[in-house]
Amino acid sequence: MKDCLFCKIINGDISAEILYKDDLVIAFTDTHPLAPVHILVIPKEHIASLNDVTDSQGDVMGALIVVAKKLAQEQDIAQSGYKLLIRTGDDGGQEVQHIHLHLIGGAPLTENIHPV
Amino acid sequence: MKDCLFCKIINGDISAEILYKDDLVIAFTDTHPLAPVHILVIPKEHIASLNDVTDSQGDVMGALIVVAKKLAQEQDIAQSGYKLLIRTGDDGGQEVQHIHLHLIGGAPLTENIHPV
Repeated sequence: MKDCLFCKIINGDISAEILYKDDLVIAFTDTHPLAPVHILVIPKEHIASLNDVTDSQGDVMGALIVVAKKLAQEQDIAQSGYKLLIRTGDDGGQEVQHIHLHLIGGAPLTENIHPV
Repeated sequence: MKDCLFCKIINGDISAEILYKDDLVIAFTDTHPLAPVHILVIPKEHIASLNDVTDSQGDVMGALIVVAKKLAQEQDIAQSGYKLLIRTGDDGGQEVQHIHLHLIGGAPLTENIHPV
């Protein structure tokens, strides 16, 4: 998608700290981290939001989670804990119209400190 | 898993408001909702946390997201927006040791009101 920030990162037109990539997904550090570890895992295919996901894209959605789990291990936060978060639409606070899964950890993110 | 709260819901030993079920996943309303819509989508198979997910379980993880997306449509919050959230470990605030994806919506959940 020509004007999509994340497609430009996928294409290399905008630089990012790429931590992982395969045929389906790519992962890079968030430039405005909310915690010591804050990584975005996104599908390479441009899918604007979860509302646009079809049944046949379940494998890509699963890959987002499996890759995030592996990155949590690599970042040494698997045992301390982490959140995975996908925002959709205005109420969900989605800011870039290309699905992105947040992997956030490295500090306590429990309800009292950081409510949903 | 004998002592798992969510396995008891899956088995019908504990009642819950079941909103969806298929071969892989089941979804029910959260008994302590944080927003007008608060649904948990879980794998039928007992998987304690994301740290225990294997590569071969990508399809189940994908199903959690695809089902949540459909439930958002059914609950009429697809256009207004929603969050999907999976907590893992202490820092992530995981409370039940059976993977559960939160679908939360029906009110603004943006960064200022509800930080991560």
